[in-house]
Amino acid sequence: MKKSGSIPDIVIERLPRYYRYLRSQLGKQEKISSRILAEHLSASASQVRHDLSYFGGFGLQGYGYRVEDLCRKIGRILGVEQDRYYVIVGAGSLGKAIANYPIFSEVGFHLSAVFDRNPEIIGSPLAGGKIGDVSELGKYLEDKSVDIVVITAPAEAAQGIADITCGSGCNGILNFAPVDLQVPENVQLRNIHLTDMMLALSYRLQRSGVVD
Amino acid sequence: MKKSGSIPDIVIERLPRYYRYLRSQLGKQEKISSRILAEHLSASASQVRHDLSYFGGFGLQGYGYRVEDLCRKIGRILGVEQDRYYVIVGAGSLGKAIANYPIFSEVGFHLSAVFDRNPEIIGSPLAGGKIGDVSELGKYLEDKSVDIVVITAPAEAAQGIADITCGSGCNGILNFAPVDLQVPENVQLRNIHLTDMMLALSYRLQRSGVVD
Repeated sequence: MKKSGSIPDIVIERLPRYYRYLRSQLGKQEKISSRILAEHLSASASQVRHDLSYFGGFGLQGYGYRVEDLCRKIGRILGVEQDRYYVIVGAGSLGKAIANYPIFSEVGFHLSAVFDRNPEIIGSPLAGGKIGDVSELGKYLEDKSVDIVVITAPAEAAQGIADITCGSGCNGILNFAPVDLQVPENVQLRNIHLTDMMLALSYRLQRSGVVD
Repeated sequence: MKKSGSIPDIVIERLPRYYRYLRSQLGKQEKISSRILAEHLSASASQVRHDLSYFGGFGLQGYGYRVEDLCRKIGRILGVEQDRYYVIVGAGSLGKAIANYPIFSEVGFHLSAVFDRNPEIIGSPLAGGKIGDVSELGKYLEDKSVDIVVITAPAEAAQGIADITCGSGCNGILNFAPVDLQVPENVQLRNIHLTDMMLALSYRLQRSGVVD
C-alpha cells in the first residue's frame, strides 16, 4: 500500500468516478475485474490497478474486486459516511437547481443555508429553508460548521463572496461564477465555468471537422 | 506561429479563460502584460506567452498585448462570432437553469429546444419555447442544425439520450448526468459531474487538515 499522503491529485479526481460506478452496481454484481471497471470509466485496466493500489490490496489475483467492499472502502476514503455541510450564495435559477440537487445528500452533503443579496427574494422559502441576506454570510460561516461554499452569484459579486468565505475560516469553494477567483493557498477552490466548457467543446467540434 | 492543428488540449482548455478575462477588461485597459494576465489566471507569465504563441505573434516585446486585439483574435479562434445551437434534454431544475443561463448567448450559443420525457411538463413554456417530447429528439437533431446536446436528465436516461444524439449526427455532448457515457470516438463529450467535484473537494479539505 502506497502512502496515502502522496496520492496524486489526478488519482483523487478519479476516485469519485470509481465510487459512482461501483455504487450503481451494488446488488447487480458481486465482483468486478479491473478490465470491466476500466471499460466503464474509459481508462486502461493497468491504470485502474495502479489507482486502486494507493488504497491497499483490494484486488484478488484472477478474481477482481468485490464490488461492495471496494465501494465501501472508496466511499470511506472520500468521506461519504460523514455529514458535511454546504451553503449556496446566489439564489438565481442555478442556485435553486443546486439547492434541489438530490444526489448531494445521498453522499453526505447537506444544504445548510442559501443566501442572496436581492431584498425581493430574501426570506423566501427554498429547499426547506429560507433565503438569507448575504450580508449575514460572514457571521453565519463563523458560527456554523460549513465545509463548502457554493457560489452561484453573478461574476461581479463572486470575489467578494470568496473573500468573506476565506475570511470566515471556510476553506472549500465550488465556484460557478464566470470569473477566476483569487484565494489563499490553503483554500480548496473548484470552478465550474459553464461557458468555458461550451467554448472548448465547440472549438474541438470545429477542429475535428477540419482535415489538417 | 506554431501549427494550429497541433495545439495541445490543455492549451485549448485554457483559451476560454483568457477570453473571459480579456472580455471583462474591454474598455478598462488598453494593453496588458503577460505577467498581469498570468496573475489573473493563476498561471505563470511564461505559460501565458507559450500558450499565446500557438496563435501567432500577438505580443509586443516590452509592451504586452493589446486587450481588444487579443480578445477579438482569441474570440475568433473560439468561434464566438458564429451562431451555434444547443438543445437541452431534461427540463428539471438544472435543465431550466441552463436554459435560462444568460452568458451562453453572449458568446454565440443559442438554445434551440428543450426536451423532457415527463408528459406533465411536455408542452409547458420554457425560455421562450415549449418543452418538447424526448421521443422526438432524434428526428429534431436530424432535421435541425444542432451543435451541442446538453444532458440534464437523470443518470438512467443519459446513455439512451447520448445514443440518440450520436446516431442523429450531432457530435457534441455536455453531460451533467452522474454517469460515464459511452460514445463513439468522433463525438466530443464533456462531463460536469457535480457530486464528483464535491467529493474530490471535500476529500482535499480533509487531507489539507492532516499533517503527514
